[in-house]
Amino acid sequence: MAIQALVFDVFGTLVDWRNSIAKEAQTLLSPLGLTTDWHSFADAWRNEYQPAMEKIRSGQRAFCDLDQLHLDNLELVLTRLGWHQVDQGTKVHLNRAWHRLAAWPDVSEAMKLLRSRFILAPCSNGHIALMVQLARTNDWHWDAIAGAELAGDYKPQPKVYLRSAAALGFRPEETMMVAAHSSDLEAAAHAGLKTAFIARPDEYGPGLGESVPTTPVDWVGENLLDLAKKLTT
Amino acid sequence: MAIQALVFDVFGTLVDWRNSIAKEAQTLLSPLGLTTDWHSFADAWRNEYQPAMEKIRSGQRAFCDLDQLHLDNLELVLTRLGWHQVDQGTKVHLNRAWHRLAAWPDVSEAMKLLRSRFILAPCSNGHIALMVQLARTNDWHWDAIAGAELAGDYKPQPKVYLRSAAALGFRPEETMMVAAHSSDLEAAAHAGLKTAFIARPDEYGPGLGESVPTTPVDWVGENLLDLAKKLTT
Repeated sequence: MAIQALVFDVFGTLVDWRNSIAKEAQTLLSPLGLTTDWHSFADAWRNEYQPAMEKIRSGQRAFCDLDQLHLDNLELVLTRLGWHQVDQGTKVHLNRAWHRLAAWPDVSEAMKLLRSRFILAPCSNGHIALMVQLARTNDWHWDAIAGAELAGDYKPQPKVYLRSAAALGFRPEETMMVAAHSSDLEAAAHAGLKTAFIARPDEYGPGLGESVPTTPVDWVGENLLDLAKKLTT
Repeated sequence: MAIQALVFDVFGTLVDWRNSIAKEAQTLLSPLGLTTDWHSFADAWRNEYQPAMEKIRSGQRAFCDLDQLHLDNLELVLTRLGWHQVDQGTKVHLNRAWHRLAAWPDVSEAMKLLRSRFILAPCSNGHIALMVQLARTNDWHWDAIAGAELAGDYKPQPKVYLRSAAALGFRPEETMMVAAHSSDLEAAAHAGLKTAFIARPDEYGPGLGESVPTTPVDWVGENLLDLAKKLTT
């Protein structure tokens, strides 16, 4: 059974959220006289990501998109810092930094190579509009936007992977999940998809990302370009 | 309120389904010794399209995708013709002709022009996988696939237009529906979208398509390229 489609994790796997968010936070908040370690600010914001989604996965909260969860989480971090002077317009603009994240340097070339062989779609917890804007920011060509919004739930719920493969018109085993996170790939494999791990060793700071998978996977790449070369030659 | 996104009808507006289907039907069925007017065959198949969707819109039948409805309708037409010798593999292959429809000649250039200014997505009754394959067939670059599958219902139900605009991150009035069918545009306008009519006078045979809209619209193009030039200059 040949692989027909690749579906991608996005935050961390394709884009460097930590440096992008640190930079935008500094740019937008330091003119207000606010100062902190901006990478720690990015980490603190991101740390609220899984708990916010867990409320939805567990049924405690109705499905809502990541713009809403990111904004709720930003409020939490700002309150914790005592930064009450940040106005709503600045919060909304900073929150949209998640639509403007920069890709890791190997992604652009890798995506072009992969698209010559496979149907490509994100299978991210980001919603469709966010994925559209990230693709515009980084000049990606997706065949479709799959993922959380289509499934009405968040990864690692199996329906997110299954709905994504089905929407593209393929069986789970014809579809491969590509991610830099073993937990994501473990869930995808459990749902019946093929899996490819790529290393993003600096995702959470230098050397603090995953360099090797901690779960069995079908393919491993040093980065996306390395994987793309392996899959297309 | 500026228009940010364009959403498109596909069958008839972007692709010439009638000539494509007539050609594929002839190619696949005439070697079986079957003969008919192949354009009439295409028309007969297409004539079952609205009644099949109406069962879903009215709640008589659960939502299922166009591959299923097209296959049901093909069975109906073959039975009516008494063509019982067509095997299942041929039926499935012929049914996939809807994934391989050729675009009208002005579409490719028009889409490139429009994408320099707007977010673009189909808002078709075709499902995501069908839209993905049509885009590959014709080398289109959609930002996302909106439409019936995302909404779980068929046009002209208002939710199909509203869900499509929302998924792209825009208000209805920031989103314009582009179609060669007045009925589609009337429904889109009723849902609050802006509307653009383009003429496809030969859709149902020479001179048998719509040349002018029969409902008020915001923009009119002689074809998609004419509209694209008007919207981008």
